[in-house]
Amino acid sequence: MLKQVLIGVLCVSVVLTAGILIGHFGITKSGDSAPSWVKDVAKDVDEKLIQQFLSEVDNVKIQENLRELTKVPHMATTAGDEQTVQLMLKRWQNPDSGLDQAWREEYLVYLSFPDPNKPNKITVVSQSGTVLHTAREKEKPYTPDQEDPDVVQPYAAYSPPGQSRGKLVYANQGKLSDYDHLNRTVDLRGTIAITRYGGAGRGAKAINAAPYGVIGVLVYTDPLDMNDGLMSDVNETYPHSWYLPPTGVERGSYNSQFGDLLTPYLAAKEGTYRIPEADIKGLPPIPTQPIGFEDAYILICALGGDAAPTDWQGGFNCTYNYGAPGFKPTSDFNDSNVNMDIFNYGKVVNSPNVMGVIRGSVEPDRYVIYGNHRDSWVHGAIDPSSGTSVMLEISRVLGRMVKQGKWRPRRSIIFGSWGAEEFGLIGSAEYAEEYFTKLSERTVAYINVDIAVFANATFRAAGMPSLQNVIFKATKQVSAPGLDSTNVYDNWKRYFNKTSPTYGLIPSVGYLTGAGSDYAAFVHYLGIASVDMSYTYDRSKTNARIYPAYHTAYDTFDYASTFIDPGFVSHQAVARTAGNVLIRLADSLVLPLNCSDYAESLEEYLKTAVDLYQEQLHTQEISMEPLKRALASFRRAAERLDELIHSSDLANETPLKVRKINDQLMLVDRAFLNPLAFESKYGYRHVIWASSNAGKQTFPGLADAFANAESSKLPSDWQKVHYHLSVVSQAIEGAASMLADVI
Amino acid sequence: MLKQVLIGVLCVSVVLTAGILIGHFGITKSGDSAPSWVKDVAKDVDEKLIQQFLSEVDNVKIQENLRELTKVPHMATTAGDEQTVQLMLKRWQNPDSGLDQAWREEYLVYLSFPDPNKPNKITVVSQSGTVLHTAREKEKPYTPDQEDPDVVQPYAAYSPPGQSRGKLVYANQGKLSDYDHLNRTVDLRGTIAITRYGGAGRGAKAINAAPYGVIGVLVYTDPLDMNDGLMSDVNETYPHSWYLPPTGVERGSYNSQFGDLLTPYLAAKEGTYRIPEADIKGLPPIPTQPIGFEDAYILICALGGDAAPTDWQGGFNCTYNYGAPGFKPTSDFNDSNVNMDIFNYGKVVNSPNVMGVIRGSVEPDRYVIYGNHRDSWVHGAIDPSSGTSVMLEISRVLGRMVKQGKWRPRRSIIFGSWGAEEFGLIGSAEYAEEYFTKLSERTVAYINVDIAVFANATFRAAGMPSLQNVIFKATKQVSAPGLDSTNVYDNWKRYFNKTSPTYGLIPSVGYLTGAGSDYAAFVHYLGIASVDMSYTYDRSKTNARIYPAYHTAYDTFDYASTFIDPGFVSHQAVARTAGNVLIRLADSLVLPLNCSDYAESLEEYLKTAVDLYQEQLHTQEISMEPLKRALASFRRAAERLDELIHSSDLANETPLKVRKINDQLMLVDRAFLNPLAFESKYGYRHVIWASSNAGKQTFPGLADAFANAESSKLPSDWQKVHYHLSVVSQAIEGAASMLADVI
Repeated sequence: MLKQVLIGVLCVSVVLTAGILIGHFGITKSGDSAPSWVKDVAKDVDEKLIQQFLSEVDNVKIQENLRELTKVPHMATTAGDEQTVQLMLKRWQNPDSGLDQAWREEYLVYLSFPDPNKPNKITVVSQSGTVLHTAREKEKPYTPDQEDPDVVQPYAAYSPPGQSRGKLVYANQGKLSDYDHLNRTVDLRGTIAITRYGGAGRGAKAINAAPYGVIGVLVYTDPLDMNDGLMSDVNETYPHSWYLPPTGVERGSYNSQFGDLLTPYLAAKEGTYRIPEADIKGLPPIPTQPIGFEDAYILICALGGDAAPTDWQGGFNCTYNYGAPGFKPTSDFNDSNVNMDIFNYGKVVNSPNVMGVIRGSVEPDRYVIYGNHRDSWVHGAIDPSSGTSVMLEISRVLGRMVKQGKWRPRRSIIFGSWGAEEFGLIGSAEYAEEYFTKLSERTVAYINVDIAVFANATFRAAGMPSLQNVIFKATKQVSAPGLDSTNVYDNWKRYFNKTSPTYGLIPSVGYLTGAGSDYAAFVHYLGIASVDMSYTYDRSKTNARIYPAYHTAYDTFDYASTFIDPGFVSHQAVARTAGNVLIRLADSLVLPLNCSDYAESLEEYLKTAVDLYQEQLHTQEISMEPLKRALASFRRAAERLDELIHSSDLANETPLKVRKINDQLMLVDRAFLNPLAFESKYGYRHVIWASSNAGKQTFPGLADAFANAESSKLPSDWQKVHYHLSVVSQAIEGAASMLADVI
Repeated sequence: MLKQVLIGVLCVSVVLTAGILIGHFGITKSGDSAPSWVKDVAKDVDEKLIQQFLSEVDNVKIQENLRELTKVPHMATTAGDEQTVQLMLKRWQNPDSGLDQAWREEYLVYLSFPDPNKPNKITVVSQSGTVLHTAREKEKPYTPDQEDPDVVQPYAAYSPPGQSRGKLVYANQGKLSDYDHLNRTVDLRGTIAITRYGGAGRGAKAINAAPYGVIGVLVYTDPLDMNDGLMSDVNETYPHSWYLPPTGVERGSYNSQFGDLLTPYLAAKEGTYRIPEADIKGLPPIPTQPIGFEDAYILICALGGDAAPTDWQGGFNCTYNYGAPGFKPTSDFNDSNVNMDIFNYGKVVNSPNVMGVIRGSVEPDRYVIYGNHRDSWVHGAIDPSSGTSVMLEISRVLGRMVKQGKWRPRRSIIFGSWGAEEFGLIGSAEYAEEYFTKLSERTVAYINVDIAVFANATFRAAGMPSLQNVIFKATKQVSAPGLDSTNVYDNWKRYFNKTSPTYGLIPSVGYLTGAGSDYAAFVHYLGIASVDMSYTYDRSKTNARIYPAYHTAYDTFDYASTFIDPGFVSHQAVARTAGNVLIRLADSLVLPLNCSDYAESLEEYLKTAVDLYQEQLHTQEISMEPLKRALASFRRAAERLDELIHSSDLANETPLKVRKINDQLMLVDRAFLNPLAFESKYGYRHVIWASSNAGKQTFPGLADAFANAESSKLPSDWQKVHYHLSVVSQAIEGAASMLADVI
């Protein structure tokens, strides 16, 4: 009986247990069990996935991307450009490793070209009309691809056409101060100035010249500025080294604003209102043409007059004379003119961006944008195809994970292959203008990798200070190419560093205060946290202004693979770093944007401003207290937000809480925008990072206004200083209130 | 045996079932049960709560609010204003029926006042210097509160001080066309113009006059325009009716832009840069003063010259003559001058906003803002205290629910009691300038109830078309005061209606194209969906320009409770409607903003534009196709979004999905902003709703540019038409891309 009872109890227990198990695990609780999305929305970045990404980034694939991208010259809107469009589309639409979607977007933009049937001509012509010298029309080829008929003649885009004949003068770098100095001894009216690259913007060399009566400007690259003095292609320059051969010419856009010149603040679509060409601002007013230093050498060494000052002397083995103006009596060119015959023309042409997206799984309406331009001047192996090769490798690895169903980012990733950057960042700027509100409301960050590898010594980055931390994290996970057991971060810190009050010695992230690449519209017009990354020089080894083949016919696959990054390991390091940053921005539960780091940079700006301006502002009865108060508010709000992030269990709270915090982090930069602060600077609205002429590392509007007032001493100019002080103070207060408790 | 087996099976079944039940309900699934917030984030608006709100809104409490608010005159920044500040704070900080938090925010703003020690004087003075007539300095009192020494002398705020002596001329409404007409027969140089309110803005009457040499302007309210012709206070006007007594004078601000005049686009804080007073634009350039029609009657009926045109004649029982200039020889004033002695002065003073909030439970970072100004000219019973009484009753009912723990809105509710509205919408504009980015990024909608009850005939509303649907829903739930079994909606439709292609006959919601109240900064500067609501006239019963005591010393509690809304039932209806709209905006899971309704309004604008402009634009080779395409994109995107909303089970999907949709709905209006579109119109950035001079119900920039080009015939003006066409087309395309699939 006991046995029976025991068996009975056992049976009941077994059945009960079975029931409990079935009830607990076998049946879904209606209305009470967690919906499947509860886990999805709480997911954070997956470190294993990052490791997988890093291991899959393939230097050989980057190399092969570059080979394919540089087969033909692909200047904006040419047949070669269309070939790269097709390549991008093919890759991004690849069923195994492409993106969710890819398409082209067209803009009708105003570009400037030389006339292939009437090449620009620079000649030395005697009084009797004899042509004594003709500058080379095209660069001397060393490899077959450099002989491609589609290699565009070197020219100054947006220089007006025209015939100028005049005596030659040497005007150093064509800065305002250069012409001013020259004008004291030389009557510049009717002369042609020869200037070297550097010191002033391309177009500025002509804009500065015209008021003195100069009627034409030649520009060349001095061997001192680019070649560490070397000049001979027999054994010194490319193809023997990375240095610029004597006939190499830097092409470039000579305009001064970004975006399509005919459609300011509007997308350049069919039917869009276009301003008259005559109303375009900031173009060279007089014919301008770049030439090689082979020709510049002949011209400059023949100049008469007195020796120019020491800092005007360049790398030629002759004395750079002022020019009286004109050539010296003892030269073959005595009494000759220089003739410029420029046939550039402007044209509205169709320039495509190629866009591709990976749709976000949880927050498709939050975008991380990664971009680079596609157009080059010639083959553009380094500029921009090194960046495009890297972008294609990143998108291949990520696209494959998506296609295999292994991964989908939390936020949407948008890739942009911008058109017509070389003419003035046009494709990216038109994109920003067309989708202004959408991008402004939804974009978490913009990553720009244009020239991925200038040189193979060290990583460098410039961007919003809020991105510093994620860049550090990413660079620590990537090994430095060519160095055993050193990561990119440590190597970087060796080359560029600063002492942070918070962190001690750290790599120094630069600021995006200019418009050097496609980040410009994102930073200055949209106010989106942006970063520009690359590998670059060991400055102890070269003084080259930039990699010497920049914008010349020598920027080819051979050049890149032989002299810039043999083995493509620096490319690989950049791809790993940029991709790592991209994944973290796209996948992190809490956006990796640190506003306390932003505060630190603003505090450095403030310190500089106080040191430079406070005393003099005090005498003008302008107080800096509102600015100090604003920054204190910003610092306080940033720290409280940090605390909130650290003290919250965000993965287990409503996803709207982390969204709230992420929106605060994402949008803080928008508070720094003021569309009325810089009326004369096209597209510049970000009051912290706008470009400045004052050359001080501080608030740009304040610095420029102060420099003006200090020089003019006008009360109305001191009022402008006060205005800019209020603008920046209130922008920072506005940003602080974005970071503070939302209600 | 069978029985035993059956019993056994039964037992096993019972035990198993018990087990299953225990397992399913008795044991919490670890990590798998829904977190508590899953239900919270899915909650929609609670109709029972709305019914409770409606039933608790108390007309007697509104009446008592009004009594308390109107005890003393409370012109901006006076002691009376501070008393209302304290009242607002006391109410909003009440522990039983207050808000979560309330505080004051101060702005240092530039106001204009008459000098109490040197009152402005208008006199008729003979050639020999004898004063023949002196205009009343203050209005005749009928009740003790009208004798309050703090009743400010009637004046034209921002009129310059000065002494003007000249012959009087009658200039109708002071429109440009009036002076132009007058100038053909009368030499206006050195004259003083007397004009009636209406037709042109207050300040415009002087701005239009000065170029003709006029040296002073008087303004009065003609009985024809305000009193349906009645003039006598013996038995016709207040205190016998709502009509304006003969000595009543409309005060007002004579400036032309909104916000503090010294700190354009900056918050007027301590230390903020202030422009020189001389640089303020849009103020009367010559002394200006309003007077009562008692005085105007004496002056106008004594004028000489020919009879003015019929449409210049007003309600006086005499012929309105042009003035030769000056008085007629037969009058006592023959050959006399009118002397204006104006002593107004400008002053920077501290003006507070009072702010109060109820923190949102689920989305605290989304704001519904409800506001009204607090300052009046005198007692301001109707303007603005009728609105403030309503706001206080809404905040009391909601605050009580919160304090009792019965309710907390999904989104945050912000109440604003704005300062210095009467001087140019200053408090609300400074608030918008100070918190520009925060408000722009987070505000779902702004509700403005300024004058809650102009008259008690019908509801009216003006606002963004996207709000039409929620206003309709709310008005259908409120019974119309004084009408059995009619709701506010049906009564409204009787008075104002239109035929919608989608809905048939519906009440007509007006557009907020001007800057008549504090919605201006929200609509035009921030681009936030806004609505302005009130009860108003039966136009078949009166032609009064506005309620007759407007801006006079007669706008008192007695006037409001006797003649405007006895029993305060219209106030109650407005409070119920506005509060209903407020709760729906704050609590709805999907924001009640309908973009298809927006599309319908834009399509009406397009139709008007095509009818008016297309043919002539065609001859100028300007195509309207981009605008048509943009609108088609917008319509398509709006409909798809509607479909997505209707086909989704948003309460059971991730809250980030409904947030995405809500952000699309919230932000669509931001895409209509263009800070560069209307350079000469301060604060106007919304390209759909900006003010326009052309008087056409269509896109304002296009309409104004077209009117200019049509009149000037200049090619450069036709280019501006093209520019504005592109601006509005691209704004609509931008809005469409906000509504379209996010990726």
